Amino acid sequence: MDIDLPDVIAEVGAAFARYEKALTTNDTAVLGELFRNDPRTLRYGMGENLYGYDEIQAFRGARSPVGLVRRTARTVISSYGRDTAVASTLFYRDTAPGKVGRQMQTWIRFPEGWRIVAASVSLIDEPQGAKG
Amino acid sequence: MDIDLPDVIAEVGAAFARYEKALTTNDTAVLGELFRNDPRTLRYGMGENLYGYDEIQAFRGARSPVGLVRRTARTVISSYGRDTAVASTLFYRDTAPGKVGRQMQTWIRFPEGWRIVAASVSLIDEPQGAKG
Repeated sequence: MDIDLPDVIAEVGAAFARYEKALTTNDTAVLGELFRNDPRTLRYGMGENLYGYDEIQAFRGARSPVGLVRRTARTVISSYGRDTAVASTLFYRDTAPGKVGRQMQTWIRFPEGWRIVAASVSLIDEPQGAKG
Repeated sequence: MDIDLPDVIAEVGAAFARYEKALTTNDTAVLGELFRNDPRTLRYGMGENLYGYDEIQAFRGARSPVGLVRRTARTVISSYGRDTAVASTLFYRDTAPGKVGRQMQTWIRFPEGWRIVAASVSLIDEPQGAKG
């Protein structure tokens, strides 16, 4: 299996950047596009467990667009073969001092493009000695 | 791409069950075996962000073996092609009433077998109206 093929990493990196921009601007159309439209798609969020694309979309629609700005750190994208990648990043928000967010996404390449099939987002106290 | 091929789901289901047993019995040898031994391997834990297999292994070795029993709920395993799967589950511990844990793992098939390349574990307040 080919790991971290440069062209695959570039593709997923572009999709990841597009997602990040959509997230911080609350562009729900793009967010909806980049999650796979399927009942299998899962998102464990900051305070909710969303099973299936419909639950994820309902959450997006109801979400407050305020305070979404964040800065990312220690972002890692790794690909396995040509059709699978994992994108992981820490993030920080000025509204949550002393806390670090973690976002981990599994991306799969479908005929329509790269899509997130599973994502997990959570916030914890910044571990002692950690640096962003 | 073939999704949820029965033989793939069975294989990953067996690996997932083996992991769960190792976790609740603190069998660090099996836990170490089932994470891919690679600097890319990532684990966002309940209170720590572990980058690379070495950090994950150091964490396992230092972990208290007390209070690991848990019950899982709403476990979903989905596979994409023959070499990729995502295993997601909620979990509950008697020591954390009112809280729900979430564990999400990306499994990849390597020549040596199925291995976790990325995992995220977190604990949140049980969402209102949720049921385990």
